[in-house]
Amino acid sequence: MSEMDTNLPSTRQVQNFIKDKKEVEVKLLTNDLLKGRVIWQDTDCLCLADDSTQTTLIWRQAIAFIKIRP
Amino acid sequence: MSEMDTNLPSTRQVQNFIKDKKEVEVKLLTNDLLKGRVIWQDTDCLCLADDSTQTTLIWRQAIAFIKIRP
Amino acid sequence: MSEMDTNLPSTRQVQNFIKDKKEVEVKLLTNDLLKGRVIWQDTDCLCLADDSTQTTLIWRQAIAFIKIRP
Amino acid sequence: MSEMDTNLPSTRQVQNFIKDKKEVEVKLLTNDLLKGRVIWQDTDCLCLADDSTQTTLIWRQAIAFIKIRP
Amino acid sequence: MSEMDTNLPSTRQVQNFIKDKKEVEVKLLTNDLLKGRVIWQDTDCLCLADDSTQTTLIWRQAIAFIKIRP
Amino acid sequence: MSEMDTNLPSTRQVQNFIKDKKEVEVKLLTNDLLKGRVIWQDTDCLCLADDSTQTTLIWRQAIAFIKIRP
Repeated sequence: MSEMDTNLPSTRQVQNFIKDKKEVEVKLLTNDLLKGRVIWQDTDCLCLADDSTQTTLIWRQAIAFIKIRP
Repeated sequence: MSEMDTNLPSTRQVQNFIKDKKEVEVKLLTNDLLKGRVIWQDTDCLCLADDSTQTTLIWRQAIAFIKIRP
Repeated sequence: MSEMDTNLPSTRQVQNFIKDKKEVEVKLLTNDLLKGRVIWQDTDCLCLADDSTQTTLIWRQAIAFIKIRP
Repeated sequence: MSEMDTNLPSTRQVQNFIKDKKEVEVKLLTNDLLKGRVIWQDTDCLCLADDSTQTTLIWRQAIAFIKIRP
Repeated sequence: MSEMDTNLPSTRQVQNFIKDKKEVEVKLLTNDLLKGRVIWQDTDCLCLADDSTQTTLIWRQAIAFIKIRP
Repeated sequence: MSEMDTNLPSTRQVQNFIKDKKEVEVKLLTNDLLKGRVIWQDTDCLCLADDSTQTTLIWRQAIAFIKIRP
């Protein structure tokens, strides 16, 4: 399995979002702004659960930025 | 054949969509939202069958996210 | 020559479009929808011939999806 | 120097555009449509000369398709 | 950990933005213009802190350019 | 340091823009058209100085084309 580089600060920051169940906003290159909690990540994707626990499989290639929801 | 990394959670999640014949929505970087069932996947593409069983060969490079249809 | 991976289902599907002279629609990341027959493919491009046999050299990097024309 | 793969049909087709001084249209992912003659190509770029012999250095990463001008 | 190439002028320039706490504008491929201070960088991302110290994890793949705020 | 391939015609052309202090227009995938002089380049970025000598760090991944200003 292509391993996540868990030494990377950015990988660890997303790992913390998961651990701390942070509400985040994920801005995509399509200009979609997806809101929810990251529940897991791998080398290709992030999985986001929204308030109704529906999950969205987001391709990393499409991510512009992630912010903690104000 | 460049192999799918079936240990990746994201690959397995798409594999489950296929196995369970889930109706999904695939959002592309063109902002197209394609609806149907994923019938197979490889390292370059996903094949989506819509209700009229017409198939669409989707390039992975163009995928933003996939959601199970509410 | 960087070889096409002819074991990939997606490569074989495009090969079948070529063999069967299928009329297809190629949606690009520019949102162009190009119509015609794929006449050859290599690792970088697809060559599409339209009704007036004019050819278009399409870069694979720009492809979102391909459908058989309804 | 990273070599062009001159065995690739697509590389050879662009080489023929250069040799035959063909007038082409280059559609970019920005939706620009650049017109002129390809005067040289390398692994990263194409160089296009327009009617007033001004040259444009086009990054391959930005190319959607190339057509011979009708 | 995939290492930053700190010999690259561009990596060093961002490192200087961090060290000198420069206010910068980061233009993304989504056309977002994010303002703030780069607080760290790694091979995949930059972390930007805005005036209210909220941080944004920006994917390098989405960056078009960075300017020092006039 | 990942080295620039200075045998590539495209790398040499940008090197000449730098040496000759040419005024250029850089078209980005965001459709921004940045004007100025390229003052240095590396494998990831170009640095552009505008008339007021403000510098812009442009990511190569975002470049569509470069033209000498008419």
